[in-house]
Amino acid sequence: MVEDARDKAPETDQDEDAYALDRKAVAQILYAVDIEDRDRLIALMDPLHAADIADLLEQINAFDRMRLIRLYGKEFDGDILSELDESIREEVIGILNPEVLADAVRELDSDDVVDLLEDLDEPQKAAILEVLEDSDRVAVQKSLTYPEFSAGRLMQREVVMAPEHWNVGETIDYLRNSDDLPDQFYHVIMVDPKLRPVGNVTLGKLMGSRREVLLRSLIEDTFHVIPVTRDEGEVAYAFNQYHLISAPVVDENERLVGVITIDDAMAVLDDEHEEDILRLAGVDEESSLSDRVIETTKRRFPWLAVNLVTAVLASLVISRFEEAITQVVALAVLMPIVASMGGNAGTQSLTVAVRALATKDLTTSNLWRVIRREVLVGVINGLAFALVMGVIGVLWFGSPALGGVIAAAMVINLVVAGLAGIVIPVMLEKVGVDPALASGAFVTTVTDVVGFFAFLGLAVIVLL
Amino acid sequence: MVEDARDKAPETDQDEDAYALDRKAVAQILYAVDIEDRDRLIALMDPLHAADIADLLEQINAFDRMRLIRLYGKEFDGDILSELDESIREEVIGILNPEVLADAVRELDSDDVVDLLEDLDEPQKAAILEVLEDSDRVAVQKSLTYPEFSAGRLMQREVVMAPEHWNVGETIDYLRNSDDLPDQFYHVIMVDPKLRPVGNVTLGKLMGSRREVLLRSLIEDTFHVIPVTRDEGEVAYAFNQYHLISAPVVDENERLVGVITIDDAMAVLDDEHEEDILRLAGVDEESSLSDRVIETTKRRFPWLAVNLVTAVLASLVISRFEEAITQVVALAVLMPIVASMGGNAGTQSLTVAVRALATKDLTTSNLWRVIRREVLVGVINGLAFALVMGVIGVLWFGSPALGGVIAAAMVINLVVAGLAGIVIPVMLEKVGVDPALASGAFVTTVTDVVGFFAFLGLAVIVLL
Repeated sequence: MVEDARDKAPETDQDEDAYALDRKAVAQILYAVDIEDRDRLIALMDPLHAADIADLLEQINAFDRMRLIRLYGKEFDGDILSELDESIREEVIGILNPEVLADAVRELDSDDVVDLLEDLDEPQKAAILEVLEDSDRVAVQKSLTYPEFSAGRLMQREVVMAPEHWNVGETIDYLRNSDDLPDQFYHVIMVDPKLRPVGNVTLGKLMGSRREVLLRSLIEDTFHVIPVTRDEGEVAYAFNQYHLISAPVVDENERLVGVITIDDAMAVLDDEHEEDILRLAGVDEESSLSDRVIETTKRRFPWLAVNLVTAVLASLVISRFEEAITQVVALAVLMPIVASMGGNAGTQSLTVAVRALATKDLTTSNLWRVIRREVLVGVINGLAFALVMGVIGVLWFGSPALGGVIAAAMVINLVVAGLAGIVIPVMLEKVGVDPALASGAFVTTVTDVVGFFAFLGLAVIVLL
Repeated sequence: MVEDARDKAPETDQDEDAYALDRKAVAQILYAVDIEDRDRLIALMDPLHAADIADLLEQINAFDRMRLIRLYGKEFDGDILSELDESIREEVIGILNPEVLADAVRELDSDDVVDLLEDLDEPQKAAILEVLEDSDRVAVQKSLTYPEFSAGRLMQREVVMAPEHWNVGETIDYLRNSDDLPDQFYHVIMVDPKLRPVGNVTLGKLMGSRREVLLRSLIEDTFHVIPVTRDEGEVAYAFNQYHLISAPVVDENERLVGVITIDDAMAVLDDEHEEDILRLAGVDEESSLSDRVIETTKRRFPWLAVNLVTAVLASLVISRFEEAITQVVALAVLMPIVASMGGNAGTQSLTVAVRALATKDLTTSNLWRVIRREVLVGVINGLAFALVMGVIGVLWFGSPALGGVIAAAMVINLVVAGLAGIVIPVMLEKVGVDPALASGAFVTTVTDVVGFFAFLGLAVIVLL
């Protein structure tokens, strides 16, 4: 009934926010909820993609969410659940009436059900498993036996395969005569008599080749077989590095058990990046905007607690120089500058190092070269800022000695920052700790402690 | 000749580094270069994917790189160039002999050539355009007329389309009889008589349907048409949000001009994330591990310069309280703790905000709710750490008044941090500045200045 702005926008707008939910659409939907006009609500929601509906549910408050879901009733479909942020998902499952939930879940592919179940509490999990049809339940339970975050959880179990000796004609006839091809598939996987995958042929190549051509002669150059237990982050890396579109998954006997497609790999890549960004900032990687205050507080607390310890350590260093500060109060004024510059330079190095480790660009082959580079960069930027700070020290406090002290401390701290920024993440990675998670705390501790100690220590030697 | 460890590793290893270049393989390759054994080099490089060869070239030093490329000679193929990091690419193009370069470039699809040319200097660009065949050159030059980072640059110009009134049989016959289908395509795009795309049919559905079924009845639910000028970041967002596999690209008359596939969108998504991570850390987004010392120094300098200004601002605040510090030197010892906690809390909020803006989860519909949440989180964590610091203040310096001052300053600064962390990125986004790039400097300035001012100011009122 309504000429919907959202539906058209993505196809014609050229502005930056072509895909953001627009405020007017949200207001119209909430109005329909207010006046409890179910037909209007359905008409407004109909053109929206499940992912957009999920975003909408995440953006409105809990009370509106409950009313909207109740009014929307049976229209609620499984894809919306799949798209919802975890923290909201449990709440929504609690609101849905059991029949609607059962229908919604039955619509989903088994890999999406697995994804849904992973994050739920046991009672909710059991309730959902119960409503599945028997064959689906078996498939889902089988997937859940694979380790979390493994290829086994990510894969679809429906595969399209052909014996390696077939030709194009046989393969096309087979495909044309099967009843239950998956809706989305991109390759025919060639298998040997033991069901081990030996090559991929794209549907495009199949379509474009004569009937008598052997499948074998059409296989893709890039063919990667993924063990079912491989970590999903590694899977995403392989898709991105080798431009894979789909890849067969094999069990411990190298038999084909499923297939992973690029859209799933893309979602994992997106999650892993998000996790890295949040971890680098000291935020729990599962944080999201729809978390409540108490959850958010809890997620932020640990990193702040770690930071408090490092800050107190730095203060202990300062306290050893109380006498010097009482005599030359300018030291108290200038000391945070040295520490802050070191912290920033360290963060720069460690971010580059963490990314390079994640993309496997930093290896034992180039580690020494990279360390040397970081130290040199520290020296050069250290000298540049030493000059600036030296001049500021002299102009502000009229003391060339003080200028010299801050300049020397700056060089020392920037070199240490470059070194710590690269060595700490590499060491953490070696001992199996995610460098994105922990490097920041260590590097800042080093730059704070070294910064204060170098500046105040030199000051005692030179000025007093 | 050599049983190559690299080739097997990705298929069987289950450890975290299944895909990293292993040190031994690199050493063997460099040894082959040292003894100038071309056959051995080729045998060692043969099983490697172009992306791995590119990584290898990035990881070795410039001298080895030159020798390797010279020895490898004609084997060097275009895909390696495509995969190389920009900073190394120009150097490698300079090393390649012109004939090898010409052959390498001619192998590439026109969209890859465009990608290659974008980052090159004018003389190199002209040299490469010159070696292309006429038809390719025209295609490349046409693509280069679209704005940088637009859908037009990203798309392939080869499309597979069918009139909207066709049935499955007609479409399959057409595909079977065309000579020049692209190797990789996933959808047949249905077009109206004016060549405007009206729907997508997957090859899988086409294969699985009877000949008389109309294409129209098989179209995908999710169909997004992308204007040729749309920003590539928005394109990647749409692919990720709506799980697109390929999407038609249209010109200003809504006529089909090309198609973007998910693998290209995935590469863009990866770049955008990388850019955000580096920008948040104050590192130029084009930084890479293969940059030289001088480039790296230059890329790091601007952010450190900005940080120096903010650090000096904070010092100016401290200098207003010199007298208080001289009287109570404990103030100098404790003040960095308040500033540092504020800086960390601010970074947490701003990172969540920057990500939420990037994923379009933070909108005008939920802004006030998010701001309220951040302030409340600041209050609660502020109170928690105020308690801890208050106790530390009392135990360490035996002064309940000092404990009270640092506790109060902590609450103030953590609330301000939460507020600044959300408001500053939102304001920057509103005025068109990338919040990932600039928020950090602003937020830290605010938390430093407020931290020192609140702590020292309260100290003057309470203690003196």
